[in-house]
Amino acid sequence: MSRWEPNARGRLERAALDLYRERGFEQTTAAQIAERAGLTERTFFRHYADKREVLFGGASQMEKFFVETLSGAPESSGPLDAVAATLDAAGELFEGRHEFARQRQDVIMASPELRERELNKLASLSRAVADTLEQRGVPADAAHLAAEVGIAVFKVGFERWTGSEGTRPLEEFLGDALRELREMAAGR
Amino acid sequence: MSRWEPNARGRLERAALDLYRERGFEQTTAAQIAERAGLTERTFFRHYADKREVLFGGASQMEKFFVETLSGAPESSGPLDAVAATLDAAGELFEGRHEFARQRQDVIMASPELRERELNKLASLSRAVADTLEQRGVPADAAHLAAEVGIAVFKVGFERWTGSEGTRPLEEFLGDALRELREMAAGR
Repeated sequence: MSRWEPNARGRLERAALDLYRERGFEQTTAAQIAERAGLTERTFFRHYADKREVLFGGASQMEKFFVETLSGAPESSGPLDAVAATLDAAGELFEGRHEFARQRQDVIMASPELRERELNKLASLSRAVADTLEQRGVPADAAHLAAEVGIAVFKVGFERWTGSEGTRPLEEFLGDALRELREMAAGR
Repeated sequence: MSRWEPNARGRLERAALDLYRERGFEQTTAAQIAERAGLTERTFFRHYADKREVLFGGASQMEKFFVETLSGAPESSGPLDAVAATLDAAGELFEGRHEFARQRQDVIMASPELRERELNKLASLSRAVADTLEQRGVPADAAHLAAEVGIAVFKVGFERWTGSEGTRPLEEFLGDALRELREMAAGR
């Protein structure tokens, strides 16, 4: 990096979210985001590949967290239980981020392009979870199923949380969704 | 339509799949697909919005089938059971289509653009399932969860089926995946 840009990623993310809310995603350029953040367009593209990516800067960090937490789950736990333990831990990634997550979710839902990117990130997360389960010795078929279902539960719990008042933490929403899944699956 | 084009959609779909396999998705144009099918480019665009869409011509039919079947499930069944009955019935849509589905899946997996479109179609199917469950009186939260999980099971079962030899019908793979989910959810 050519000069000191404290928290450039965070500033770009915040500026992008503000502009997308004010003008809409389509109407905003990377140059405008950089300007709002007090940075150059070059700096923008050093940090993010495009103006969609700026809202998904946390995705690789989250994937890393999922993989590490899953890898550390007790060996005895079944694949869905290992995923459940990971969801339970994932809440801490979003502590104090409810307002940001809620605004971000509104912006994503309003743009087909952003929804598409979100689906891609979730699919990538699902593959990472499946791979990690396989490395734990779970057969490929079961690993794939537990990963897809685990990410479905995450998606639902996360959307409920962003749609909530923000008084309850994410992990409670994820835990509720998983409990409901277990009840549904048992036919109750 | 200006002239008689028997089964234009099926011919375009087959020609597209053949060309994507021979040359790759990126290297194929709508004009080439039309030519291979013995039709004009104008005819192509009367039937499909773009060269991705030609591989997803069955998606709206499938969505309609899911909605109708779900609507007809016994009133007493819980949301996941209603989805399960729908998955069980969905196999008939793909009877005699294994080889086509297998080739199509290979092509989709090889192209980020096609994978993206596939994720979009599945998300749309999930929303349709959730809406239909809500119309059956299922609370929104439970409807959303059952839909996301049901589509996750469908995705996994479908991919196992396309990856198989084709001797067992799709509904068996969907049934197996659902049974495994129930076992996982019960912690067995």
